[in-house]
Amino acid sequence: MTSAAGAVLDDARDRVEPAMRMAVARLDPANRLVAEYHLGYADAAGTPVAESGGKGVRGALALLSARAAGAPAETGIPAAVACELVHNFSLLHDDIMDADTTRRHRATAWTVFGTSAAILGGDAMLGLATEVLAEAASPTVPWAVRCLSAATRRLIAGQAEDLAFESDQSVTLERCRQMAAGKTGALLACAASLGSVLADAPASLTLSLADFGQHVGMAFQLVDDLLGIWGSPERTGKPVASDLASRKKSLPVVAVLAAGGDEADRLTEIYGRPGSLTDEELAAAAEAVERGGGRAWATAEADRETAAALEILTDLPIDEDVRSDLRSVTEMLCGRDH
Amino acid sequence: MTSAAGAVLDDARDRVEPAMRMAVARLDPANRLVAEYHLGYADAAGTPVAESGGKGVRGALALLSARAAGAPAETGIPAAVACELVHNFSLLHDDIMDADTTRRHRATAWTVFGTSAAILGGDAMLGLATEVLAEAASPTVPWAVRCLSAATRRLIAGQAEDLAFESDQSVTLERCRQMAAGKTGALLACAASLGSVLADAPASLTLSLADFGQHVGMAFQLVDDLLGIWGSPERTGKPVASDLASRKKSLPVVAVLAAGGDEADRLTEIYGRPGSLTDEELAAAAEAVERGGGRAWATAEADRETAAALEILTDLPIDEDVRSDLRSVTEMLCGRDH
Repeated sequence: MTSAAGAVLDDARDRVEPAMRMAVARLDPANRLVAEYHLGYADAAGTPVAESGGKGVRGALALLSARAAGAPAETGIPAAVACELVHNFSLLHDDIMDADTTRRHRATAWTVFGTSAAILGGDAMLGLATEVLAEAASPTVPWAVRCLSAATRRLIAGQAEDLAFESDQSVTLERCRQMAAGKTGALLACAASLGSVLADAPASLTLSLADFGQHVGMAFQLVDDLLGIWGSPERTGKPVASDLASRKKSLPVVAVLAAGGDEADRLTEIYGRPGSLTDEELAAAAEAVERGGGRAWATAEADRETAAALEILTDLPIDEDVRSDLRSVTEMLCGRDH
Repeated sequence: MTSAAGAVLDDARDRVEPAMRMAVARLDPANRLVAEYHLGYADAAGTPVAESGGKGVRGALALLSARAAGAPAETGIPAAVACELVHNFSLLHDDIMDADTTRRHRATAWTVFGTSAAILGGDAMLGLATEVLAEAASPTVPWAVRCLSAATRRLIAGQAEDLAFESDQSVTLERCRQMAAGKTGALLACAASLGSVLADAPASLTLSLADFGQHVGMAFQLVDDLLGIWGSPERTGKPVASDLASRKKSLPVVAVLAAGGDEADRLTEIYGRPGSLTDEELAAAAEAVERGGGRAWATAEADRETAAALEILTDLPIDEDVRSDLRSVTEMLCGRDH
């Protein structure tokens, strides 16, 4: 992470985390425990720990979004908390659906507390997100709540598509893109604009910020999909080639499958084998994605989306220090810093 | 059902259902299918059916709540749709957690579409509830959204308590009451007051309506718990003694267990047996609840809560026709009509 982006995220976390902790403290003890564990605030017994939660990207974008509208960062805090809660609700439920056992270097919540408690914990965080946002001291609260709800709906739709891909042998690249736009883009677009909504910004600015966030989201998903195949476990907090191990139809994979040819056949054949894939099989699958052009395509697409996001930024009528911070976060998220 | 209450519910359904259908139609195809199936609008393939969904009690209360504030019933429609969606979200997720296979005489959604799709379908309905409410044409939308979110939080907390009871050998009656107040009372209190919030009613009226709804909710839960032991499958849409079969610590059961004595020991012993309970064991468990005084206690408590609800109604400064409709619905819900 560049030190510039690191400083922006650290500063945002310092502002957002106290509000997050206060929000989660409203929950009943059982759901609070699940939420605090998932967020890295506590261990499974509720004892405070200094684990790393997420990077807080959505929270940081929400604060920058308020500043972009000329308001203090604080104006964006309810938006930041709401977006982080929706993000974490979706991770909690995704881990159940994908049967993932590791998240952020820790056992996933459902493996610790059971499926039912994890379903409820996610539900509680989703409800809490709206509650916090509705309490913001802004005349635009109704509109802000609509934006968050619509983004949540798109996020859930994307997740439903992702789920459908598992049993669908003919996923097109366009459909995969749409899925990623919903699953990842919608909430990042919301985060990047929701602070400006609370700051009562002109619609033109809010819409441009949402557009910027949508491109950032797509670039981020592409980079994340590359890391899901070639990322180191130290960096991802997940096992090696975890997306291949779970036979995910991620963007680089679908790029190869949809193009057809030898590498597509090879990948289809490996994905079709029963049981857990061995390290050798995972390596062969990764090689098929690489030779089939999936890695190069995803890298180029990520660059294109990043460029589009940065171009929107360049044209925004915002303070230079906010533009600079947004640029740093974009470059970090889009993998340009390593 | 009395014809008076039936007419009120039918009229409410006629007004609310078109808005519900429009709301659900916004969802992506996969989540829409799950929601429409669960709501009784469609079969598992999405073909429209004329199955019976729920009674629409929360929707009816929300419309009456708007009328109580002197507004037309239509003012309450976004509140009605929101409360029905939250109710159905919770049923969908509850069915997964309780592994229930039958709801409203049909196979539960998770048995038809799988657990993951049912989790997402519930998530989608919860998000949609907020979206619809936030779109209401009322200056009180922020407050309405807060009320709904707080009720949702209490509902989820109640469900978490219910879940915890499964493995807790020493549930007190007071804790069981609190659980029911959250799981059932919170959303009925919200429904009975949310229409008045959208109608910008005085706080005194809104709070009284919420108080009324809370008592109705408690009476309803007590009656529902009695039906969960002694209700006919034709009426409940569930198997005989389904709460005993799933070893639920419902209010009449906890009343006996918490009191201690021979029948409590007998019940504890039956609940402790491994595997499915036979019809004879279920009958013996029901007899233990009856002999231990659980049935009489729950019946008396339901009467007390119903009387409290009706007393609040009597004192409300509302039109007589609204009072009469609220009374009919209360008597139906609280089991006084059969």
